[in-house]
Amino acid sequence: MEHRLATRMRYLQASDIREILKVAVSPTMISMAGGLPAAEIFPVDALKEVTQEVFELDGPSALQYSTTEGDAEFRRAVADRMERVHEISAVADDVLITSGSQQGLDLIGKILLDEGDAVLCESPTYVGMINALQAYQPRWEEILTDDDGMVLEDLAARLADATGVKLIYVVPDYQNPSGRCWSLERRKGLLELARRFDVLVVEDSPYSEIRFEGERVPTLKSLDLDNRVIFLGTFSKIFCPGMRIGWTIAQREIIEKLVLAKQGADLHTSTLAQRQIYRYMKRCGFQSSIERIRELYRHRRDVMIQALDRELPIGCRRTHPCGGLFVWVEFPPEVDGRKVLERCLEADVAFVPGGGFFPNGGHENTARLNFSAMPPDRIEEGVRRLGAVLKRQLECEAVAVTAG
Amino acid sequence: MEHRLATRMRYLQASDIREILKVAVSPTMISMAGGLPAAEIFPVDALKEVTQEVFELDGPSALQYSTTEGDAEFRRAVADRMERVHEISAVADDVLITSGSQQGLDLIGKILLDEGDAVLCESPTYVGMINALQAYQPRWEEILTDDDGMVLEDLAARLADATGVKLIYVVPDYQNPSGRCWSLERRKGLLELARRFDVLVVEDSPYSEIRFEGERVPTLKSLDLDNRVIFLGTFSKIFCPGMRIGWTIAQREIIEKLVLAKQGADLHTSTLAQRQIYRYMKRCGFQSSIERIRELYRHRRDVMIQALDRELPIGCRRTHPCGGLFVWVEFPPEVDGRKVLERCLEADVAFVPGGGFFPNGGHENTARLNFSAMPPDRIEEGVRRLGAVLKRQLECEAVAVTAG
Repeated sequence: MEHRLATRMRYLQASDIREILKVAVSPTMISMAGGLPAAEIFPVDALKEVTQEVFELDGPSALQYSTTEGDAEFRRAVADRMERVHEISAVADDVLITSGSQQGLDLIGKILLDEGDAVLCESPTYVGMINALQAYQPRWEEILTDDDGMVLEDLAARLADATGVKLIYVVPDYQNPSGRCWSLERRKGLLELARRFDVLVVEDSPYSEIRFEGERVPTLKSLDLDNRVIFLGTFSKIFCPGMRIGWTIAQREIIEKLVLAKQGADLHTSTLAQRQIYRYMKRCGFQSSIERIRELYRHRRDVMIQALDRELPIGCRRTHPCGGLFVWVEFPPEVDGRKVLERCLEADVAFVPGGGFFPNGGHENTARLNFSAMPPDRIEEGVRRLGAVLKRQLECEAVAVTAG
Repeated sequence: MEHRLATRMRYLQASDIREILKVAVSPTMISMAGGLPAAEIFPVDALKEVTQEVFELDGPSALQYSTTEGDAEFRRAVADRMERVHEISAVADDVLITSGSQQGLDLIGKILLDEGDAVLCESPTYVGMINALQAYQPRWEEILTDDDGMVLEDLAARLADATGVKLIYVVPDYQNPSGRCWSLERRKGLLELARRFDVLVVEDSPYSEIRFEGERVPTLKSLDLDNRVIFLGTFSKIFCPGMRIGWTIAQREIIEKLVLAKQGADLHTSTLAQRQIYRYMKRCGFQSSIERIRELYRHRRDVMIQALDRELPIGCRRTHPCGGLFVWVEFPPEVDGRKVLERCLEADVAFVPGGGFFPNGGHENTARLNFSAMPPDRIEEGVRRLGAVLKRQLECEAVAVTAG
C-alpha cells in the first residue's frame, strides 16, 4: 500500500497517543484527555424549537444545495456579531462559513503553503492546527512563549532569520493547550512585527468568549490596521460542536481563494445547519448560554487547580487559565508524560501528554488537562489518581538514580 | 497577494463560466445550468419528525463532538444498505462518513496524489472531481468513451504507456455530464485492466439509484474481487443534498489514511446530521422517495429530449440518458458553447458549456443540460430559447463563411 500513497502521507501519521486513548475507554475511566464542552448545558430544547421553524418556514430550500461562501444572511449575522462582540469590522463578504474552524485551517494551508514554507507558532501550539497544516509539509518554527504570549524578541529574531515565512499562527485567548491569554502589549507587538516583515497572521479564536475573570483583551483582528489577520471563529465552544459550523474572516482576496479551495473540498457547508444556527442567533442569541458556560467552567477550573495544588508532587508546575477549557502542567524534567499516561490508564484516569503540542518534538514532561467535561467530584478524583501515579513514578526515578 | 499563495493555486482558478452564471440570476431566467435535485419532493415533514426524535432521545450527544470515522451505527446502516442495494459486501469499518461525496474526492487526492501523478478519467468527466483533484496537481489522461463507457483499447494503451498512474476515476451510472451508463462488459473489462496494471479505481456513484429504465448493471465495487475499488456514495440525489452527507467504502488501509486526512480537514462530519439521516433510514427508508424521484425525473427527461429533437438545428446530437439528471448535447464543430451561452443569457436561458468537463481542454462545442430542477413547461420553453439562439448562431456562421 505504501507505494501508492502521496509523499505528504509520511507527514500525516496516526498519533500513538490518540490510538492509546481511543482504546482506553471504560465506564470507570476519568478522562481529562478530551476537549469536549459540557454537553449537559447544550440548549437542546431551544434548538429543537428553531429547527421546527426552519422546516416549517422553508424546508425545501434548507435541504437544497447552497453557495460555497455560505448563506448570505447568515454571513451577515456572523459579521454583525463579530463587530458587536469583538469590534471586528466586517461585512458578509468578508466571511466564509466553514465546516468548523478546523476546515478554515485546512483551507488556509491549501491556499498558502508550499512544501518547506515556514509556519511560526507558539510553543506549545494547537495540535489540530499541526494536523491540518502538516499535509502541506511546512517547516515549523516554534516561538518561545511566557505567560503574556510569544516572546517578541524571539519572534523578531526568527522573522529576521527564517526564509519563506508564510504565516504566524496564534491562539491569543485561553490557548489550547496552555490556557494562556496574551497581553495587549504583546498583541500590538506581534502585529507590528507582522507588518514590518509583511507576514500574514492567523488568529484562531475558539475560546475568546469563555472568559472567567479579568478584562477582555481586544482580538488581533480588531487591532489589525492593514488587513493581514485571518480570523477563525466557531460555534463549537459557545453553542455546540457537533454541527460543525465555523467561520473565517479575512481580506477579500484571501476569502476568494479560500472559497475556491472549499469548492473542491466539500462544495459548501450544510445549508440546514446554517439555517438552524442563524435562526437560533436571531431568536435566542448566545449571551445567556455563554454566561452559564463561564460560570460552570470557572467553577470546574477552580476545583481542578485546587486539586492540582493539593495532589501534585513538588517540582510540578501548572498554569492558571483565566478562560478556556484546559490547564497545562509541567512535570519535573526527568518525568516522561507518556509513561505517566500508561500508569494512569491502569489507574483509570486519562490525560494528553504534552509532547504532541510541539511540532518539532521534545517537552515530553508536560500534560494537558481538560476541566470542562466533568463534574467537580470526578475532577477531584481524577487529579488525585494522577497525583498518586506521579508520586510513585518520582519515587521510582529517585530509586533508579540512587541505584545507578 | 499572488506572491503569498501556494503554487497549487495556479491550478485552482475560478471558472469563468461559473462566474458568468453566478451573476446571471433573474426571476425570468430558465436555468438548465445547475445540477439541483427537485426540492419540491424533499421529504421535509418526515425529516422534521425524525429530527424531533433525535433531539428528544439524545439531544446532548447529537450536538457533541464525535469520531472522525462517523457514528458507528450509522456506518453499519450505510454498509447494510450498500449490501442490499448494490450487493457491495461491507461492514461498518469499511465505511467513512464524509461531508458529501465531494469530500471523499478531496481526501482521496490528498492521500494518493503527488504532483505529476496520472489520473485516468472518462472524457468528458465530472467537473467537481477536476476541482477537487486539481489542488494536488495531477496529470490528466482522458480516455476515449462511447455509449457503453470507456473504450477499453484506449484505456489499455494508456495504462501501458503512462507513468505514475495513481487511479482511474469513473462514474459508471448515468454520468455527470454525459448521462451515460456503462455496460457490464466494460465494467468487467475495466476491472481486469486495473488488476493487470495494479491501479486503484474510484467509482463515484451518486446517480446509480436514479434509474429510469433498463436493468440495473452491477456497481464496480460489487464486482471488485481484489478490493481495489474506492466507492463514493451520497444521500444528495436520493434524499437531499443540503445536509452534505456522503460516504466512502474502501479497503481498510485506505480508510485509515482517509480518516487521518479527514481529521486534519474538518475533525468529523456533523453528529446531528448523521443521527438525523440514520433515524430517517430506520423509520422511512429511501424506497418511496426514490420511486417518486425516478418517476418525476423520467418524465422531465422525456420532455427535454422531445423538445431537443424538435428545437435543435440539424447537426446537433444529444444523449439519451437512462437515469441521472443530465442530457449532453454536441453542437456542430464550428459552434462555440461559450458564445452560445452568452446569447442564451440575453434570451434568459442558461446551461453549462461542456468544455469545463474536459480537464485537458477542447470540446467547446458541447453543453450539459439539467432536467431535474424544473417543471415541464419551463424545460420546453428553455429548450425552445436555446434552439432559437443556436439557429441564429448557425446562420451567422454560415453568412460569415460565405462572406469570408
